[in-house]
Amino acid sequence: MPTNGALWKLLADARVYDLSQPLQQSIPVSPNHPGFRMALLRRHGDMVRADGSSASNELIVMGAHTGTHIDALCHVSLNGLLYGGQDANEAQKGGLFSVLGMDTVPIVFCRGVMLDIPALLGVEVLGAGMPITSEHLSKACERQGVEVSPGDAVLIRSGWPKYWNDSETFVGLSGGVPGPDESAAAWLTNRRVRVTGAETIAYECIYPGRGHSLLPVHRKLLVESAICIIESMNLTELARENVSEFLFVLTPLKIVGGTGSPVRPIAVVS
Amino acid sequence: MPTNGALWKLLADARVYDLSQPLQQSIPVSPNHPGFRMALLRRHGDMVRADGSSASNELIVMGAHTGTHIDALCHVSLNGLLYGGQDANEAQKGGLFSVLGMDTVPIVFCRGVMLDIPALLGVEVLGAGMPITSEHLSKACERQGVEVSPGDAVLIRSGWPKYWNDSETFVGLSGGVPGPDESAAAWLTNRRVRVTGAETIAYECIYPGRGHSLLPVHRKLLVESAICIIESMNLTELARENVSEFLFVLTPLKIVGGTGSPVRPIAVVS
Amino acid sequence: MPTNGALWKLLADARVYDLSQPLQQSIPVSPNHPGFRMALLRRHGDMVRADGSSASNELIVMGAHTGTHIDALCHVSLNGLLYGGQDANEAQKGGLFSVLGMDTVPIVFCRGVMLDIPALLGVEVLGAGMPITSEHLSKACERQGVEVSPGDAVLIRSGWPKYWNDSETFVGLSGGVPGPDESAAAWLTNRRVRVTGAETIAYECIYPGRGHSLLPVHRKLLVESAICIIESMNLTELARENVSEFLFVLTPLKIVGGTGSPVRPIAVVS
Amino acid sequence: MPTNGALWKLLADARVYDLSQPLQQSIPVSPNHPGFRMALLRRHGDMVRADGSSASNELIVMGAHTGTHIDALCHVSLNGLLYGGQDANEAQKGGLFSVLGMDTVPIVFCRGVMLDIPALLGVEVLGAGMPITSEHLSKACERQGVEVSPGDAVLIRSGWPKYWNDSETFVGLSGGVPGPDESAAAWLTNRRVRVTGAETIAYECIYPGRGHSLLPVHRKLLVESAICIIESMNLTELARENVSEFLFVLTPLKIVGGTGSPVRPIAVVS
Repeated sequence: MPTNGALWKLLADARVYDLSQPLQQSIPVSPNHPGFRMALLRRHGDMVRADGSSASNELIVMGAHTGTHIDALCHVSLNGLLYGGQDANEAQKGGLFSVLGMDTVPIVFCRGVMLDIPALLGVEVLGAGMPITSEHLSKACERQGVEVSPGDAVLIRSGWPKYWNDSETFVGLSGGVPGPDESAAAWLTNRRVRVTGAETIAYECIYPGRGHSLLPVHRKLLVESAICIIESMNLTELARENVSEFLFVLTPLKIVGGTGSPVRPIAVVS
Repeated sequence: MPTNGALWKLLADARVYDLSQPLQQSIPVSPNHPGFRMALLRRHGDMVRADGSSASNELIVMGAHTGTHIDALCHVSLNGLLYGGQDANEAQKGGLFSVLGMDTVPIVFCRGVMLDIPALLGVEVLGAGMPITSEHLSKACERQGVEVSPGDAVLIRSGWPKYWNDSETFVGLSGGVPGPDESAAAWLTNRRVRVTGAETIAYECIYPGRGHSLLPVHRKLLVESAICIIESMNLTELARENVSEFLFVLTPLKIVGGTGSPVRPIAVVS
Repeated sequence: MPTNGALWKLLADARVYDLSQPLQQSIPVSPNHPGFRMALLRRHGDMVRADGSSASNELIVMGAHTGTHIDALCHVSLNGLLYGGQDANEAQKGGLFSVLGMDTVPIVFCRGVMLDIPALLGVEVLGAGMPITSEHLSKACERQGVEVSPGDAVLIRSGWPKYWNDSETFVGLSGGVPGPDESAAAWLTNRRVRVTGAETIAYECIYPGRGHSLLPVHRKLLVESAICIIESMNLTELARENVSEFLFVLTPLKIVGGTGSPVRPIAVVS
Repeated sequence: MPTNGALWKLLADARVYDLSQPLQQSIPVSPNHPGFRMALLRRHGDMVRADGSSASNELIVMGAHTGTHIDALCHVSLNGLLYGGQDANEAQKGGLFSVLGMDTVPIVFCRGVMLDIPALLGVEVLGAGMPITSEHLSKACERQGVEVSPGDAVLIRSGWPKYWNDSETFVGLSGGVPGPDESAAAWLTNRRVRVTGAETIAYECIYPGRGHSLLPVHRKLLVESAICIIESMNLTELARENVSEFLFVLTPLKIVGGTGSPVRPIAVVS
């Protein structure tokens, strides 16, 4: 408890970085998932209380994987099995997951590292369909003077938010999207990272024209290694201010049996 | 940056408390708001990729004020005006709020204080419809040896999660619900707290039989003092472990123009 | 084509009876199904065109079996099989039904017969949990001077709309609900009726305290005999005006692969 | 009642034409309205009853104006007023329409006429952005040997369903869409038609590049003349079989205070 004082006094000068994209109807959406939509059920004035007060509130309809979000381990299966060899069919019986659901994803509160690949390569944004390899990750660590240790969160920048307002390009079904390839996935699993995130919808590399036909990195991370994936992050500000390591906090909604959750991840430095 | 090392090394032993309730269809819901519902759009096996992998994801339908959530300032108006005298009608034109929406609610990362009123009174849970007064808050501070300073988050415990599985009682339309009254609201505004939360759906005291006919504390906090309100929290664990002050972190979804957001607030001690 | 003139000239004096209940948030809902909710996405004034015109439209969230609705054959299975021995698991793969879905339910345009059981028994409404038997159906035919032939629609009145505004009673989870029993189901299948409907949510008899634990009539009609079921009808007006036979028209929404559809069935006499 | 026998005996040979498009996620959608989405809440096998039966049902999320649908009079306003000079703001207070809502749209059961403009012009489908004028309507009547009388439903064919599977073309935001212009609207209002429908999303002519910036025909029909509009119909089969007049039946969902309803309109000949 004495250190508690140290904790929050230290954080008095904490700088908090918002690593999320906004949620609104116009955001780019993966072909497999619903978009975001809200409609005000009540507006101010619809019902006015005796004291002149009124309220407004909305109905929200969205996918669990809409906008900046995290995938639970139950999101992907391989040959009918989830992580740990658990039967996917059994797990999903009843319409929600009895194991490995969103409610089993722990709150993330750990050291985070942002690896800036565009900066490594001296570009503003990576090319569509460009694979980020293990070599890129190692060199970025070198360039930025950081190391990745077990239990860390690793956020991989591509610069893709540049196209956030150009849905077709951002989703990249035909054009492709940059992202970690299988060697990068292995690099992460070898280091036993806690969780990993990127700035695209699909996280991993989508080659031009391939769409989401195969997602080997999802398989390796979620199914084989129990590493949750965060998608559609915005790491622009971290890059602009050269922040490579930080306290990483991500508090997913405790959706019982869900496969994903919208999130507002943050990076904190002091 | 040197202190960054101190930051996360210090937090290596951080204990994180989850202050939220789960999200599922069966949760108690305010009469004015939709409940939580999810439906798997795809289940594992619906579509199997060439490599044997498959995926599952859901459609979510919920209210912005469903489950543990935070109210944005645009949620309540008085005499047609939002906080700062802004016209509510103008603000809501278009179906979402052009000012004071959820996207304008800053990420909360500050000192937090939990005031345990049942413990103060030597009971397990407060009575339905019991007002928590400024005097209770002062005495709780005294008993727990804490002070509330400007910029703090103040979480007020009532023990109401005891009835979480008894919707009718929890919502308390006829029976009433314990919570801060206007004197408590003034106590909070005088101390210029950052944000405040409680364990009930309505946050403030609902007298038996009155329902939500008048919500003066919402008015005082949201409309008059720009203090956001967090509802349906679960402070049981904090109480059980006698945690009175902590780092409080709350990262609301960045819903553009929204009136509320489901959240997963946490308390961290080290 | 000559008879076409006869057709609509004859119908110039047609009297159309609306056999549906209204759709709004407050309607009684089966425990297994979502209710009805709408939220205006846009209101008049949100966006005004150059000519001063404006528009309003809503988002609708509902279950397929909400309000007055018809069940498709894929709604119920027995031992993993749908009507015709089709595998239910295979049929539902992909998240919608590849066989026997709502889009395969033909438009209903046939002779209809309304059997008034309360009138038969000299009561206003049948008792909760009271089974309507084959004997009741035969006696009603006798009393009303009608016969049921193959291809007819048979609507069975219980008077249950009397409790439409008392959700708990109407749904009857503990109290039970009147409706056809297995002998009545056999009576209908023997006469090879086209489709059948009733005024309750569950159509068939729900015995007090049993809830929806077993629904043998659904099984017999949908799975064994390919007879679709219409629920939550309102036959009050037909009864009041002593209408026993009529042209019955029901045009279900062509929901591809769906299990049900809200409908507005009508009876026409001339 | 004697004529009742004539009614349904006559209709024994009735041929029913389905004038609707299917409802599924992939259908073309107006920029202002949500699409159609369904998700099975339960699948067969999720819960198996004691007798081996199981059930499946879905959650539906859609716009009121999605797919084949009818507009209620409250859908459009002019200078803040609905049909009959009723104040739009007042009418929509509370989040649903207290006047002129979907529940006030009567069931349509009348003579119907289909005017085949492509056949008139000897083409398969009208050009994008081509206005259908009063002259076209008159000449079509002439060519098809029909007259339009007060109380009739007038369905205007353009052949646009040809592009149903090409969303971008079908919606025609940039390319435009054929449809009645203001002279055609006047032609309809002069004849005091009951209701009118077409095969496009917007019903009226959308000139290339103009999008939905102005919808004068909606204004004239809904606001000035109380004539409801049906959109996204499919009149292909009627055209193929040279059916010009028929019994027209449309039973909108009785959505209290709604602005539109999905429908399954039919044409019947005998």
